[in-house]
Amino acid sequence: MNIVEIIEKKRDNQNLSSDEIQFWIEGVTDSSIPDYQTSALLMAIVLNGMTQDETNALTKSMLHSGDIINLDDIVGKKVDKHSTGGVGDKTTMILSPLVAACGAKVAKMSGRGLGHTGGTLDKLESIPNFNINLESQAFIDQVNDINVAVVGQTGNLVYADKVLYSLRDVTGTVNAIPLIASSIMSKKLAGGANCILLDVKYGEGAFMKTVDEAKELAQSMILIGESMDLEMNAMISNMNQPLGKTIGNALEVYEAVLTLKNQGPKELEELCLIASGIMLRQAGLATSDEQGYEIALENLRNGNAYRTFLEWIAAQGGDVTMFDDLDQFIESNHAKQVIAKQDGFIHDIHALELGMVSMHLGAGRQKVEDTIDYKAGIIIQKEIGDSVKKGDVLCELLSSNPIKIKEVDDAEACFIITSDEREKPQLIADVL
Amino acid sequence: MNIVEIIEKKRDNQNLSSDEIQFWIEGVTDSSIPDYQTSALLMAIVLNGMTQDETNALTKSMLHSGDIINLDDIVGKKVDKHSTGGVGDKTTMILSPLVAACGAKVAKMSGRGLGHTGGTLDKLESIPNFNINLESQAFIDQVNDINVAVVGQTGNLVYADKVLYSLRDVTGTVNAIPLIASSIMSKKLAGGANCILLDVKYGEGAFMKTVDEAKELAQSMILIGESMDLEMNAMISNMNQPLGKTIGNALEVYEAVLTLKNQGPKELEELCLIASGIMLRQAGLATSDEQGYEIALENLRNGNAYRTFLEWIAAQGGDVTMFDDLDQFIESNHAKQVIAKQDGFIHDIHALELGMVSMHLGAGRQKVEDTIDYKAGIIIQKEIGDSVKKGDVLCELLSSNPIKIKEVDDAEACFIITSDEREKPQLIADVL
Repeated sequence: MNIVEIIEKKRDNQNLSSDEIQFWIEGVTDSSIPDYQTSALLMAIVLNGMTQDETNALTKSMLHSGDIINLDDIVGKKVDKHSTGGVGDKTTMILSPLVAACGAKVAKMSGRGLGHTGGTLDKLESIPNFNINLESQAFIDQVNDINVAVVGQTGNLVYADKVLYSLRDVTGTVNAIPLIASSIMSKKLAGGANCILLDVKYGEGAFMKTVDEAKELAQSMILIGESMDLEMNAMISNMNQPLGKTIGNALEVYEAVLTLKNQGPKELEELCLIASGIMLRQAGLATSDEQGYEIALENLRNGNAYRTFLEWIAAQGGDVTMFDDLDQFIESNHAKQVIAKQDGFIHDIHALELGMVSMHLGAGRQKVEDTIDYKAGIIIQKEIGDSVKKGDVLCELLSSNPIKIKEVDDAEACFIITSDEREKPQLIADVL
Repeated sequence: MNIVEIIEKKRDNQNLSSDEIQFWIEGVTDSSIPDYQTSALLMAIVLNGMTQDETNALTKSMLHSGDIINLDDIVGKKVDKHSTGGVGDKTTMILSPLVAACGAKVAKMSGRGLGHTGGTLDKLESIPNFNINLESQAFIDQVNDINVAVVGQTGNLVYADKVLYSLRDVTGTVNAIPLIASSIMSKKLAGGANCILLDVKYGEGAFMKTVDEAKELAQSMILIGESMDLEMNAMISNMNQPLGKTIGNALEVYEAVLTLKNQGPKELEELCLIASGIMLRQAGLATSDEQGYEIALENLRNGNAYRTFLEWIAAQGGDVTMFDDLDQFIESNHAKQVIAKQDGFIHDIHALELGMVSMHLGAGRQKVEDTIDYKAGIIIQKEIGDSVKKGDVLCELLSSNPIKIKEVDDAEACFIITSDEREKPQLIADVL
């Protein structure tokens, strides 16, 4: 086999065989195929696409380019949720203890944030002493014991994805469904879950701009997972505004705790209940999504979910006394209000740009080596569809450091106010 | 400016500005843009194309990536002919002295052969003591003196093309009209000619498979040249069989000499006369292609062209006594006849494959460092349309070394014999 012939085949819009794809990915993994050949092939894939069979084969080859986590010692089905990246997305911290309280096994590896997207690990580390590094056996024991553990990535999973991703990032080849789907799914498969619920975001701030594109990506990932005998579902959700009322690390933990204590925003709660219903059905703990929803609702209302949350945080060393005074937990040295300059209705909130403001406040990283200010972030007071009067607070910016006027201006520019009434957008467009 | 944004623009099928193209080519030239970004952009160009404006800008940027030869000290218009690469193409050796005899200035830089394509320099070096390395002033003086000089490439012309070509060769991005056209034309422009006649080949053994593709490439090169104020024309010619009756180095010199002595194959002579007519008109030495043809014909018939040839070869040190006994000039140690195995008509001759047989006999190079056997090559006895009887000689293989049975078999397989009559194909499909 010959990489030039493989490139030419994809250039000429022909389908690659599993063997050809494997030859490529093995060459990427052992560095025998140089970057300039891989980037030419990536561009041909972006422009000519891949069939589902090719995408499945690519995922399988990538999966085997690194370590694969073995979770067989955990009794029962392992459920996992994956979001394609949202601003203010704290669902993992709510869903994990919620479905664990209902009997599902959550053995989750999570990531750190970069750019406008936050990472669950960073959020959890805003809780003093929370430990994201568990030894493999301790991780398995904790899940068998209390049903839930969330850790950083261990081992060298999907090595080829690291090479491909860094190359895609600098060659204009990030945005292609076969490449996105295989990158996400190979990592999920390497993580060892049996059931996966995808949360595929669409909208201005997401990779996929429209519902249809998001569905296409979701469908491709579902078919990949099913070809590997996984239980697969996907929610198609709107990222035209941040999820919930907070962006930031301690701030999102705070909102997750409120939600687990039945005091959170209704829409965020509803999203988590729907997701839990699907995950419980996938795990065989409910016969339908609706029954799963009811089980989750009961365990949320009766306090089981919050108790499981506290148990989980404590099991990983986190100081749960923090949650005795939530106001103090989110108290920051500096705060500034962002004020509406006109009357009207909130027509749009630029989620991605608001995520960037939060990053600049200290809540996120511009480069991987940056450190995080856990107290920094944004509390959102107005949502799409809300009416506003001139002088109303749109949102509040928090930081450990003085807040520049530029951040206030940038945040204000994220809220598009028009004189026309605007319906509240639906958060979940579809469930596949 | 940012190379990733430039790649994304071309990926999204938008046109690049001259500045963006220049930024890219300067980055290629000073190595500030890595190969993996260039190869992604090349693939996007192959799949999404370039407008003529983009192709012109690319050519201009490439032209300025290296030295540019200044031929202003040569009095009169400099004519040049460029072929896109043929098997058995000895026209440069005939045309150059022919138009020089008529008063045109031929200051030509030529190349060496690789693979199935021969190089004029190699052919000329089969004449003992012929010197292809002239100092810049000697080159100019010789053209002013006897109207013709053919030398090897001097200076570091079109540096970016060297980088791009070596990358295109291994990334499946050779075959795209904007890339082929800009590569050829930037080198021609750097060589300093005022008038260029292109011979764009089509057929099985050429880059362009059809007349239409060849015309498209020719048209693009004409527009590039015209945008730089050059006189441009193109012949679209058939490469479905070798040009003339010989392939090889001494063999092709022999056939060129025969043609200049009015004893060559009629079709080759006709091609050279038509080309000369165009070049003389371009140079202002004839008012029409037809008048140019007549002038060339006269100078061929009256012996001026052959006298100029001898003068030229002698001026560059070549031993013209070689041509006193042409049979001895092409005599080789080993020869084998290739025999027809059936009656019928020659339906096709695979030019490219026959070029490969010639290369294996020693007439060409597989790798740039290979040495050449000047005596090696093929004398063709049957052309497309000829009738053959079983036992007839199709061609004769010559070499300084013993000839393997495989070469004979491979040569025989190049002649496709069918029972149906076949019209003789037209050599020149069009003149643009």
